[in-house]
Amino acid sequence: MTLTGQSLIAGQWQGRAEQGEFQAFSPAKNQPLSTRYFNVTSTQLNTAVDAADNAFIEYRKTSFSQRADFLECIAEQILALGDDLLTQTAQETNLPMARLQGERMRTVNQLKAFASALRENPDSPLGLKLIDEADSNRSPLPKPRTELNYLPLGPVAVFGASNFPYAFSTLGGDTAAALAAGCPVVVKNHTAHPGTGELMARAALAAIKECDMPLGVFSMLQSDVYDISHQLVAAPAIKAVGFTGSFNVARLLQETIAKRSEPIPFYGELGSINPQIVLPKKAQNEGKAMAEALCQSMLMGNGQFCTSPGLWLVPTGCDELEAEVANCISAAASDTLLTPGIVKTFKKQVSQRSELENVELIAKGALTEDFHGNAHVFACNVDTYLATPALREEVFGPAALLVRYESMEQLSLLVAALEGQLTASVHDSADDLAKAEHVIEELKYKVGRLIHNQMPTGVEVCGSMNHGGPFPSSTDVRSTSVGLNAMLRFLRPICYQS
Amino acid sequence: MTLTGQSLIAGQWQGRAEQGEFQAFSPAKNQPLSTRYFNVTSTQLNTAVDAADNAFIEYRKTSFSQRADFLECIAEQILALGDDLLTQTAQETNLPMARLQGERMRTVNQLKAFASALRENPDSPLGLKLIDEADSNRSPLPKPRTELNYLPLGPVAVFGASNFPYAFSTLGGDTAAALAAGCPVVVKNHTAHPGTGELMARAALAAIKECDMPLGVFSMLQSDVYDISHQLVAAPAIKAVGFTGSFNVARLLQETIAKRSEPIPFYGELGSINPQIVLPKKAQNEGKAMAEALCQSMLMGNGQFCTSPGLWLVPTGCDELEAEVANCISAAASDTLLTPGIVKTFKKQVSQRSELENVELIAKGALTEDFHGNAHVFACNVDTYLATPALREEVFGPAALLVRYESMEQLSLLVAALEGQLTASVHDSADDLAKAEHVIEELKYKVGRLIHNQMPTGVEVCGSMNHGGPFPSSTDVRSTSVGLNAMLRFLRPICYQS
Repeated sequence: MTLTGQSLIAGQWQGRAEQGEFQAFSPAKNQPLSTRYFNVTSTQLNTAVDAADNAFIEYRKTSFSQRADFLECIAEQILALGDDLLTQTAQETNLPMARLQGERMRTVNQLKAFASALRENPDSPLGLKLIDEADSNRSPLPKPRTELNYLPLGPVAVFGASNFPYAFSTLGGDTAAALAAGCPVVVKNHTAHPGTGELMARAALAAIKECDMPLGVFSMLQSDVYDISHQLVAAPAIKAVGFTGSFNVARLLQETIAKRSEPIPFYGELGSINPQIVLPKKAQNEGKAMAEALCQSMLMGNGQFCTSPGLWLVPTGCDELEAEVANCISAAASDTLLTPGIVKTFKKQVSQRSELENVELIAKGALTEDFHGNAHVFACNVDTYLATPALREEVFGPAALLVRYESMEQLSLLVAALEGQLTASVHDSADDLAKAEHVIEELKYKVGRLIHNQMPTGVEVCGSMNHGGPFPSSTDVRSTSVGLNAMLRFLRPICYQS
Repeated sequence: MTLTGQSLIAGQWQGRAEQGEFQAFSPAKNQPLSTRYFNVTSTQLNTAVDAADNAFIEYRKTSFSQRADFLECIAEQILALGDDLLTQTAQETNLPMARLQGERMRTVNQLKAFASALRENPDSPLGLKLIDEADSNRSPLPKPRTELNYLPLGPVAVFGASNFPYAFSTLGGDTAAALAAGCPVVVKNHTAHPGTGELMARAALAAIKECDMPLGVFSMLQSDVYDISHQLVAAPAIKAVGFTGSFNVARLLQETIAKRSEPIPFYGELGSINPQIVLPKKAQNEGKAMAEALCQSMLMGNGQFCTSPGLWLVPTGCDELEAEVANCISAAASDTLLTPGIVKTFKKQVSQRSELENVELIAKGALTEDFHGNAHVFACNVDTYLATPALREEVFGPAALLVRYESMEQLSLLVAALEGQLTASVHDSADDLAKAEHVIEELKYKVGRLIHNQMPTGVEVCGSMNHGGPFPSSTDVRSTSVGLNAMLRFLRPICYQS
């Protein structure tokens, strides 16, 4: 398929070379890809936002079954892009084909899950409607009938992530949840996979036409100009923002949002080091298996999952476990990371970590190409961890830090000092867990998902999932970006009286 | 009862004259009351916040039944204050005794309603727990068991309102909801009723001791120094803010909150002009009764309800309705308002409104005392309303604006131009409603509660209530400050996996 490099502005493909342009990058070849993408103009952005605002008036009135048809049609149109989509994304991200196939399926299933939820409860989102009947005999005053239901917030701005080019991007979870809720969407496409974004926008447009939806219900903006993102979140018609990305970008967007006259929710999913607590008996009895599981989970997607385990809390003196970590990590093949920027930051962070006092390198993998990221596992003790703020930073890529604890008291201190996380796991064996009750109680208040004896990578899409967590892992701990409840982020209550 | 003028800092009454002091004011006598209240110091505030943070560790572990006991005990202790409470509040607010008795009952019932909700669902707030069972046979990967539940956010700062000294103040809805959720509370007491706040804090302390709760679970700060409020919302340990008050104060607090490194929810309930749409046949057939109902509702509490109907949309040429409005308003006795500041602002706004071009005064009540507020109803046509931004402002006190519309198209235009409101009512008769479908669809997106043939004053405390609304009526349209769902504002999801 030939790419145009244009943005989709309410049904119109727009963009020309005079607007400025950028190229995508092949991480595998370490060179730019040939297609040029045109930076959306302020006027085009405003057209998209105005169209979303107008489309809202029609779209919010659609029945849940019409919305379900629309979401399912988007899913079909994604599949109809066929291998062209996978090939394009593989070029832009270097993610392996099997992973992309899996992520595509997950993205399609996500759209279908929202569609099913809409069909199951055709008169209120997730069946949340609540009625208190009237009571004309109540004294001193009769009681009116009140019915609680939910309305969509309005147009939503979505910022996709580089590390999940389908599931957390153009037609990913945020877009699916917003459309299910009844909100039009304006996506600022990620510059790391603009071609993927263009193909996804084609799928959306085909579904809009097939389902006779208003054209303004979905727009997709291409740009590598920073200001455009700020202009989007500042637009008065935008009523919520979904974002997956880095802490620093989120912080700047949040500052722009704080300057709006109307406050709006900002749902930023930022990242996390996902602590893995290995309790003493588990480490002793199953040290080798534990080491393999930790390394395998951390190396998934070359360490570029938001749930990648970056902090391993292991008792002092677990030689077998540490030896196996060294084996696995030394044997790990290096690979490219998603973007040159990520490679650069990864190398810088790893090099800084190598120079920290009292921090040792347990093992690293070979570096096949200079533009790759290679696996690193560092180690230190609890005192060093607590005294070294730099060790709390997320290293995005194939790196982890093993912290050796001497006692449950030390483990407790460390957990109390943790910042907010998307997830944490506790790995136990025999009667370990009872002794860690105190630690686990504290850990609950640090995470969005608490896992027992499993790795954090792999996030189920289901009603009881929570993907979010205390700041700084997300900007709004009250919400999830995965699972059906993600829809609630774009809804608000209304009471109908009498 | 003798008042100390002190703040309750985690179980200790603190405050001395050297800290600076302020007095409450008797609106009825138009002179200060004698008791002196000591401005809380920064150190005392920090002690209260630190104690709340420490108390959270214990309080969050209390069972729902323990929390229910505590809430019910607070309710009993409020009633145990007896007439002393009512007398004190009457002095400070000039609200009539019957109203204060009713509001006290409502406040007590609110605490009991949260207690009942906790007892009904002892293992998850409002029974929201959700479980997806494991499926070890699922391919390609087995499905883990996931359970969604809810945790309290942490210490909550509460700012009470002047107009509801019980129900939206020291031990009002925000405090009750936060304590029910498992969050300690630090209340900045309203300076308009500091003695009421001190008595309420005594009730809270008695309940804390009786139920053996940590002392830091509730503190109450007295101060008329502006900075103290900002220091409170900026404190890192504070994890949410509940506020009922004016737009301007809310805006400034929100700016302070935006500068925090950790974003936290700010639930501000600000005010509203609560449009009343009288459809043509209703106005023709029942003009007199409609006029009486509008005037009576607007005059409740001398126009100082947040749901007071301040905007009446009435067809042109409804002479009978307008004549009856003039009768009712001319006959309305003047009374004081809650504070000298409110009186001053009311007089200024009414005088400005009198001078606006194309705005006429339909009627006003006699002014018995210079420090009273007297009833005013102004009128204009739709064009004037749309062209005059000053007419959209809330006038807090006994004033309303009647806007005459000539057609359903004009009514539509006006509704489209409305800002966000807590409530709106549509009053119809015969087949009016069918013709207004378009207007009502638009109106839904402007309000938190949409009412049919009833007045907006009087907010039911029940599960299906929503008291909130699009900005600027509240700062967070996703939440309610009345009803059981108010608890959700202070909770966040967590997923337990396996």
